[in-house]
Amino acid sequence: MKILAIDSSGQVATVALIEDSECVAEYSINYKKTHSQTLLPMLEEIRKMVGLDLPSIDAIAVAAGPGSFTGLRIGSATAKGLGQALNKPIIPVPTVDGLAFNLYGSDKLICPLMDARRNQTYTGLYRFQRAGEELKLEVLEPQCAVALEEIIQKINEINSEVIFLGDGVSVFREQIREQVKVPFTFAPACCNRQRAAAVGTLALEYMKLGKAEAAEKHQPEYLRLSQAERERKEEMQRGHHN
Amino acid sequence: MKILAIDSSGQVATVALIEDSECVAEYSINYKKTHSQTLLPMLEEIRKMVGLDLPSIDAIAVAAGPGSFTGLRIGSATAKGLGQALNKPIIPVPTVDGLAFNLYGSDKLICPLMDARRNQTYTGLYRFQRAGEELKLEVLEPQCAVALEEIIQKINEINSEVIFLGDGVSVFREQIREQVKVPFTFAPACCNRQRAAAVGTLALEYMKLGKAEAAEKHQPEYLRLSQAERERKEEMQRGHHN
Repeated sequence: MKILAIDSSGQVATVALIEDSECVAEYSINYKKTHSQTLLPMLEEIRKMVGLDLPSIDAIAVAAGPGSFTGLRIGSATAKGLGQALNKPIIPVPTVDGLAFNLYGSDKLICPLMDARRNQTYTGLYRFQRAGEELKLEVLEPQCAVALEEIIQKINEINSEVIFLGDGVSVFREQIREQVKVPFTFAPACCNRQRAAAVGTLALEYMKLGKAEAAEKHQPEYLRLSQAERERKEEMQRGHHN
Repeated sequence: MKILAIDSSGQVATVALIEDSECVAEYSINYKKTHSQTLLPMLEEIRKMVGLDLPSIDAIAVAAGPGSFTGLRIGSATAKGLGQALNKPIIPVPTVDGLAFNLYGSDKLICPLMDARRNQTYTGLYRFQRAGEELKLEVLEPQCAVALEEIIQKINEINSEVIFLGDGVSVFREQIREQVKVPFTFAPACCNRQRAAAVGTLALEYMKLGKAEAAEKHQPEYLRLSQAERERKEEMQRGHHN
């Protein structure tokens, strides 16, 4: 099974080619360029480097949200374009699950934190469980947009050592130190941001579970309204009340 | 602290730029091309993508062996060339330690297995231990070239759940199933091969411990004699006995 994976849900642009138990290529950039400048050139770069025949892939995995609205739209448009041109399905991977999968092998609670602005974080709670010769990612708290206090309360209730990762860590570090009552650590550089290889590896399992969808049907999962939609809704509500 | 990391110890060619707690760029290829065709072009690719000013790096981290002799020489030569041209130190990272660091966050025993041919594996045993807000890689069994049975015996003695990773897994899978007496799992595609980001992240810690060395003094650690050296030695010993 050969899967092309992309993730542009956050500041990182990352592409990978996964073939069964091997990552054939992975290219990630965490840099202030727009994803429209990076994602396709990076894909083309690895395609040339490994002589990839695009029609030979079985599916396209994409970090399907939540995340930056523009980032998700670029990732989704890229995946849909490729999927429709190649007639291959898309495997949507919840962004926060993909982030959690970075810490494969951990027995600790895993809490990805993405900075969602407006005093919220895109987060969730995960743990790996052994299933035969593999570990499976178990979702304890599905990805959601909540205030940090809400997820910290759940961690304190579960009362189990936790690892935090994601671009929210730098935003919420002091609050974590003040409020988390269990032992905690922060993941280091090599595993604290989106990686397409993690998205693609998780997608391999989703593929087996039949979670692929037709490219033309794919839509990102924003989890919240965009700023424009929110403002329009508020405007309309104000209109109603006048 | 800004570290440029490279690993060409196995079939994977991988380069990364680590800046403190962020991986700015990582590019890895696991493909049957020689490292002389991949490593420098990949480095140049990320340099251009993130507009890296090479003199701004603080050190060069390199997977310093064991591994493929040719791979190690290419990695070492690249690191020494850059280090001498830029007047920056080299941080040599034991290859097997770098591999183990892929499984950051695991509470399990970590056993990287590199196929060393001649019925041997380059391996070691590791575990992560919490130290404040970080986890530190603890070396239980330093990297070595041994028969698989030898490392399995140590794992069975420690009697603790283990994760295997590395290109040796596909070679030794059946022997592992027959001989390992503790619960075991195999790491999946996203974290079972060399990653320069792991090498660079580990190098950040080595840098703090003063483990950098002058570029001109750096030598790879082969752990064994090369085939040519071995044959010459055998030849000479035969000569002695005649």
